[in-house]
Amino acid sequence: MTCGHILSRRSPAGDSRERFICDHCGEIHYQNPKIVVGCVPDRDGRILLCRRAIEPRRGFWTVPAGFMELGETIAEGAARETREEALAEVEIGRLFASVDVIEAGQVHLFFAATLKGSFGVGVETLEVGLFFPEEIPWTDIAFRSGRFALEKYLEDAGRNNGVHLHRVRRGE
Amino acid sequence: MTCGHILSRRSPAGDSRERFICDHCGEIHYQNPKIVVGCVPDRDGRILLCRRAIEPRRGFWTVPAGFMELGETIAEGAARETREEALAEVEIGRLFASVDVIEAGQVHLFFAATLKGSFGVGVETLEVGLFFPEEIPWTDIAFRSGRFALEKYLEDAGRNNGVHLHRVRRGE
Repeated sequence: MTCGHILSRRSPAGDSRERFICDHCGEIHYQNPKIVVGCVPDRDGRILLCRRAIEPRRGFWTVPAGFMELGETIAEGAARETREEALAEVEIGRLFASVDVIEAGQVHLFFAATLKGSFGVGVETLEVGLFFPEEIPWTDIAFRSGRFALEKYLEDAGRNNGVHLHRVRRGE
Repeated sequence: MTCGHILSRRSPAGDSRERFICDHCGEIHYQNPKIVVGCVPDRDGRILLCRRAIEPRRGFWTVPAGFMELGETIAEGAARETREEALAEVEIGRLFASVDVIEAGQVHLFFAATLKGSFGVGVETLEVGLFFPEEIPWTDIAFRSGRFALEKYLEDAGRNNGVHLHRVRRGE
């Protein structure tokens, strides 16, 4: 990825794991879990959800979330995903949930957030809605990590109970 | 990294950012921030620190921390790093600090932890010690993220104040 040459898989000196190593320049290309950042945008007790226009889980509802990019903080990433998916600005609050999705090689981090101004339908979204807790379409939530975040957000009811840790077994 | 052929740098369809794309199989190789996991191992008010045997910051003190690997949770990663660097077992507690190290493309996550049993000197470590708060060698701490974690851990004094978010400007 640096010099453009072919990689092979072997253990570097002093390392117990196999890595991808460039046969040309010797650079070791580590593979590590990726961070997904998301938030629960709240306006006066109603939560913004997006219905996905893309796979996986097209047609199902989710909180705004997506892969963190280089060059941003985790909070900026969560705000950017909300901007992209729901055309909405949020004020990011406390980090309250972290979900290990080991089989997918991902860690999902969720923030509480306050929805500001208007919202709309981003290109990866079919529909955006605001839901009171009793209106949340629980049977049509896209991902277990997002469901966990919604559940814990509602249980916290605005209190700072720290980070709820969770592990899901499949990379839904 | 999958088919072993040369990668070029361009924007995939529908993506506003340049990515590394395989000219042969078309696979997009995303680059994302990496997760560093660490902990503050506490035994009866004394904190375990390791003096680094490797660069960067050889000879400086740090809490146990390192890159998260595929196949583990963030908590398991923090415990593994402690095992490797200080030959010590810990019980991982609350996640209490997250530091964005943007220039290094890293997110550092820190847990409170309870030190169990004995400890020793791992291969990447020169020395391991237990320090009461007033004994911590603040001028010889290796990384700003670890210093932030130590400061917030002591400020929290066992209370769950949620996650302290921080950003450092250099990848020390």
